[in-house]
Amino acid sequence: MKTVRIGMIGSGYIGRAHAIAYSQAPTVFPLNGALVKAMLADVSPERADERARELGFLRSTGDWRELVSDPEIDVVDICAPNFLHKAMAMAAIRHGKHVYAEKPLALNAADAREMVDAARLAGVKTLVGFNYMKNPTASLAKEIIANGEIGDVVHFYGAHNEDYLCEPFKPADWHCCKETAGLGALGDLGAHIVNMAQYLVGDIDSVCGDLQTVITQRPSHAGSTRWVQVENEDQAHALVRFANGARGVIETSRIACGRKMGLTYVVTGSKGALSFTQERMAELKLFLQDDPAHRQGFRTLLIGPLHPDYAAFCSGAGHGIGFNDQKTVEVRDLIDGIAADLPLWPDFEEGWKVSRILDAIVLSHQMSRWVTVDEIG
Amino acid sequence: MKTVRIGMIGSGYIGRAHAIAYSQAPTVFPLNGALVKAMLADVSPERADERARELGFLRSTGDWRELVSDPEIDVVDICAPNFLHKAMAMAAIRHGKHVYAEKPLALNAADAREMVDAARLAGVKTLVGFNYMKNPTASLAKEIIANGEIGDVVHFYGAHNEDYLCEPFKPADWHCCKETAGLGALGDLGAHIVNMAQYLVGDIDSVCGDLQTVITQRPSHAGSTRWVQVENEDQAHALVRFANGARGVIETSRIACGRKMGLTYVVTGSKGALSFTQERMAELKLFLQDDPAHRQGFRTLLIGPLHPDYAAFCSGAGHGIGFNDQKTVEVRDLIDGIAADLPLWPDFEEGWKVSRILDAIVLSHQMSRWVTVDEIG
Amino acid sequence: MKTVRIGMIGSGYIGRAHAIAYSQAPTVFPLNGALVKAMLADVSPERADERARELGFLRSTGDWRELVSDPEIDVVDICAPNFLHKAMAMAAIRHGKHVYAEKPLALNAADAREMVDAARLAGVKTLVGFNYMKNPTASLAKEIIANGEIGDVVHFYGAHNEDYLCEPFKPADWHCCKETAGLGALGDLGAHIVNMAQYLVGDIDSVCGDLQTVITQRPSHAGSTRWVQVENEDQAHALVRFANGARGVIETSRIACGRKMGLTYVVTGSKGALSFTQERMAELKLFLQDDPAHRQGFRTLLIGPLHPDYAAFCSGAGHGIGFNDQKTVEVRDLIDGIAADLPLWPDFEEGWKVSRILDAIVLSHQMSRWVTVDEIG
Amino acid sequence: MKTVRIGMIGSGYIGRAHAIAYSQAPTVFPLNGALVKAMLADVSPERADERARELGFLRSTGDWRELVSDPEIDVVDICAPNFLHKAMAMAAIRHGKHVYAEKPLALNAADAREMVDAARLAGVKTLVGFNYMKNPTASLAKEIIANGEIGDVVHFYGAHNEDYLCEPFKPADWHCCKETAGLGALGDLGAHIVNMAQYLVGDIDSVCGDLQTVITQRPSHAGSTRWVQVENEDQAHALVRFANGARGVIETSRIACGRKMGLTYVVTGSKGALSFTQERMAELKLFLQDDPAHRQGFRTLLIGPLHPDYAAFCSGAGHGIGFNDQKTVEVRDLIDGIAADLPLWPDFEEGWKVSRILDAIVLSHQMSRWVTVDEIG
Repeated sequence: MKTVRIGMIGSGYIGRAHAIAYSQAPTVFPLNGALVKAMLADVSPERADERARELGFLRSTGDWRELVSDPEIDVVDICAPNFLHKAMAMAAIRHGKHVYAEKPLALNAADAREMVDAARLAGVKTLVGFNYMKNPTASLAKEIIANGEIGDVVHFYGAHNEDYLCEPFKPADWHCCKETAGLGALGDLGAHIVNMAQYLVGDIDSVCGDLQTVITQRPSHAGSTRWVQVENEDQAHALVRFANGARGVIETSRIACGRKMGLTYVVTGSKGALSFTQERMAELKLFLQDDPAHRQGFRTLLIGPLHPDYAAFCSGAGHGIGFNDQKTVEVRDLIDGIAADLPLWPDFEEGWKVSRILDAIVLSHQMSRWVTVDEIG
Repeated sequence: MKTVRIGMIGSGYIGRAHAIAYSQAPTVFPLNGALVKAMLADVSPERADERARELGFLRSTGDWRELVSDPEIDVVDICAPNFLHKAMAMAAIRHGKHVYAEKPLALNAADAREMVDAARLAGVKTLVGFNYMKNPTASLAKEIIANGEIGDVVHFYGAHNEDYLCEPFKPADWHCCKETAGLGALGDLGAHIVNMAQYLVGDIDSVCGDLQTVITQRPSHAGSTRWVQVENEDQAHALVRFANGARGVIETSRIACGRKMGLTYVVTGSKGALSFTQERMAELKLFLQDDPAHRQGFRTLLIGPLHPDYAAFCSGAGHGIGFNDQKTVEVRDLIDGIAADLPLWPDFEEGWKVSRILDAIVLSHQMSRWVTVDEIG
Repeated sequence: MKTVRIGMIGSGYIGRAHAIAYSQAPTVFPLNGALVKAMLADVSPERADERARELGFLRSTGDWRELVSDPEIDVVDICAPNFLHKAMAMAAIRHGKHVYAEKPLALNAADAREMVDAARLAGVKTLVGFNYMKNPTASLAKEIIANGEIGDVVHFYGAHNEDYLCEPFKPADWHCCKETAGLGALGDLGAHIVNMAQYLVGDIDSVCGDLQTVITQRPSHAGSTRWVQVENEDQAHALVRFANGARGVIETSRIACGRKMGLTYVVTGSKGALSFTQERMAELKLFLQDDPAHRQGFRTLLIGPLHPDYAAFCSGAGHGIGFNDQKTVEVRDLIDGIAADLPLWPDFEEGWKVSRILDAIVLSHQMSRWVTVDEIG
Repeated sequence: MKTVRIGMIGSGYIGRAHAIAYSQAPTVFPLNGALVKAMLADVSPERADERARELGFLRSTGDWRELVSDPEIDVVDICAPNFLHKAMAMAAIRHGKHVYAEKPLALNAADAREMVDAARLAGVKTLVGFNYMKNPTASLAKEIIANGEIGDVVHFYGAHNEDYLCEPFKPADWHCCKETAGLGALGDLGAHIVNMAQYLVGDIDSVCGDLQTVITQRPSHAGSTRWVQVENEDQAHALVRFANGARGVIETSRIACGRKMGLTYVVTGSKGALSFTQERMAELKLFLQDDPAHRQGFRTLLIGPLHPDYAAFCSGAGHGIGFNDQKTVEVRDLIDGIAADLPLWPDFEEGWKVSRILDAIVLSHQMSRWVTVDEIG
């Protein structure tokens, strides 16, 4: 059985989720490879050491460059802030490592493209952490659509709304700064719903977007009377057209009061419809036009062992699936793909596609017109 | 007490709703005027006679021109197909009648404008049947927004989706034909959600729209093998910008499988949010950012006697409000306004505003660019 | 066409609902008889006169005895407080009137029995205002069960909880007094859910109940410092066994904070289940075990024209049904039954059955043991 | 840091959940002790060996007696079928092991009592796997009640309904047999909701129950034409009275079509109410009577980092919590309690209390009368 040694960079919000997933994955799934939490890099040796002990990594370093070049590492897992993704991934690729990177893959599509090309050239595998598509409920939605159970998709509504910046006096942090975050809500949240649209419906080929920074200035830090400019969008929405003819709308916001985990989608087909919200991540609503007319209605499917990927967590239907369980499915895909030398999905190519669509939405906004995704190059 | 004599044209789907509202309104509300169901016009004398007896009108006629010129009629109530609204309203106005017309007011904004001007010149009162804004729950939403309880509105999502044409083999009817219906989903359903957006948030000043006829041909009639062209859109969606700076999205579809009465809106403010769906027309979800952080959540308000217009129907909260009850509130506004010589709302001016926005969405689609509503003239 | 002349006693909460239903019923339904709102009796001639004009009755009286003996009245409709039901009904029956009485039919089963016997002897028709079973959604539930779509019923959970007396400083009113109200929550609310259980599942034949007065003393009236005893139960619950072998639980409360119209039921069958709450009175949840295992789920049926009694209100599914619409169906049954000389349902016999079950629950509580309904006599 | 070496017996449904929890707990929480998955016992050496490798235990044995006497084991974790709990626990206690046992603690209260006494005498710690009370949402409910936010509890409705035996042709398995399972739905599911009632409201002191075996015979095994008797109840319900004066109802069923994880409760207080269903395990509905009357409504709290135990899983509110996360909280309690020599909760005493209540419900059913829990001894 092949051993897969993970080197993780960063241990914040999402890094902890990765660590938890690494811990439970080998017990949940019969993995094809032996997963080792080999090394953790963080901003200082002290912090890296402390976090490595907390999260169960064998070694640690205060210098990510050491990690990416370490010969005892097979996969570099990038959980660092957005603006570092590219440099870290390129370095890892140069050292022949497989790369597992959080979303958004890069600050823009051009950077993402370089990363795709470098990985392809180096022959390493890549995976982007679009974890919501790893939710068994999303896989069930995909299965239903792929089976044709709702017919041809004619419409997609998708949103990823949260409210983490809805308070106007909340200080500007790295999210609000172009250099560190790139895009605002679009990059942080929109990337997920664009990815979901691509996953469930197929390629988006043109967009017409509108972006807005609602809270244009924020305190520089808590308690400060100095106000700084917010450099990227608080909310964005776009009309979209898919290559297969479906149409739709995509929305995202980081100031949507009350939406804590507002990733939601409604997929309308010629013979049915699906509706989902991540705040109820273990249920999917399904309408089938073929049901007898007087007994039609959206039915609430509770995710269970007859559906994709759930049985490994629990034998009982409807018992619930959590946030880290999605990451655990993602880690299963990572380890199995590397151990068995199979393609990973969604790879950097897919991450680039998402970046391209986000860039097209921005360009569309700047030009006040529809933009085809191919214009982004 | 002034008597208000109604002459109604048409007795189909919505005409019946009007008749039911006329019947119950004087019992539900202490009206300022005495409502008389004076005359009904329909497509033939026989049908008009039969329907008048069924719906409780005193007289009937097979010729609507007779009705609009009858001296014993105070209000002409137009429940005929869309393409007849203008001619009927103009004739009624010429005879000095107040006019209560169903939506969409006309097939396009230019026609609607002529109607507004004619009514103003003649000094008659007008009312358009945007009944969903008469739902006490919508009035509650309006009150909450107007009070500033959710702060400044920053985003509006609105949809009016139904599925009455989702079956591809359902024959083309008058809805599918430009001459009789004008617009498709936009005119039939979109008018309602545009009206709601204007009511709750304020004037929309620019739009970017996308329209699509998904089922491009349909049987000419049931069982026929002759297929005819569908001439207007099955679904449409638009980015919108409001005069007050809020942004949003509006969607409509007549092929949205499973949506039976899918008028829905989410209004996001700087300090809270509202969420509503007409399929649960007696409840409104309200999120208040000012609630203690660890006890925040969307609360489900059940419409009750402490809210607008409900107490007249029932003294107990949460006992439910029905489709025809909305029309009953509308009829209350009609009779009270005419009896007391007060302005009616939403009047033809408002109907024209909605038409103008719909036309702007269509133009935007044709030109593939943003359109300001003022471009429509 | 036979004329049916209504004499209504009382014009409070439920009297208004009756009046609204009388007003709209002839427009909503093609009734078999001509309904006339002939006379209203209330506590004084002045009030009766004022209310008759408001609610559209032709004549009025301050003395209900005058009404029940009036030769121009066909149906006596009793909307007076509970403790008067019996005397009024008996008087009406003596004068050969049909009787339409609100629930609970009487203060106890013995009284109800006298009323049944008197009506039978006099050959008059009777109807009890258990309006929630007239909700088209309840009729749909009944239809589904009767068709065997959920198999044999094995369990019934039913509740009718409200919160109108949850505030401890709310003064004691007639509800709290044995002489005027008889039972507390059981009589006022429990009667409805017991009726629903009988309607949907069949006869209850034994019960084991528990009653509790939680707020034992209340101010005698608003602002008073004098406290009076609450004489009947705030909440009650009972185990029940049905004649057909099904088992279940029934609950009721008038102090259930937050429940505004908490009539709710879950019917479990051998092949499916139904779930309903009156706060969402236009939808029914249906689970069918025969659906494919991986696509099972409770489906939300929106009441529509393919279901019982709805089409008369609206041709569009899911457009909503209100509280007074239930009464309108009830009035349809009343008028049609009387005009065509057909049995009415639920009649006094059914009202007595409900009273008997309520009395059995009380007896069971007093005796701390199971009681068969037959013990009540 | 103290090491806590786990010896687990059984690796089926719930054993896997324990193993997953052991795997993720040290990463999720900063445990006070070092957890070691030391040994797994199963029905044969081969199966034990295979499962130990799958689930990550260091050693294995085909004889549980070997495990309980192994000097290198600190905690014996019993995930074996119900009928073995007692013997295993007693043996473990004799060897001075702490015991972590799945529910129901024993087949009856008398057995449970022996276990309590033995553990107390031996001075070992005990924990029962009532994992649903470890759901952060349940802890939030507890906190709200304990704070008095909903006032004094006046009513509890609780159910734990599932449908795993709703198919009449599903063969009888160990669940259906008194010798192996003891009680039916009551022991398997009812134990959870009784525990939850005790946790949220306090001690139940008398009950009146009704039990029913609906499907009295089942095939002896799949495809068999031999039918065997089902020896315990399919459904049960009970009226309950709490020591603090609250009243309520508890229900359980294993044949409740459509209920996949139907643990649900509604707690009504004098100033508010709570409502929860495990199928939406990450949300709690809260009604506060103190909200302004016209803005009252049940609010949906999404579990988040401001609530108990959640932040360790995810920093973002509403991101979701899964079935195994509950067990992970339970394991945190186990390890921390043992490492720091603190009491565990719910311990065998609490397990015995639950057993006693279940036995009282059965006795009540047999005697057709109310039973005080103290009668069970």
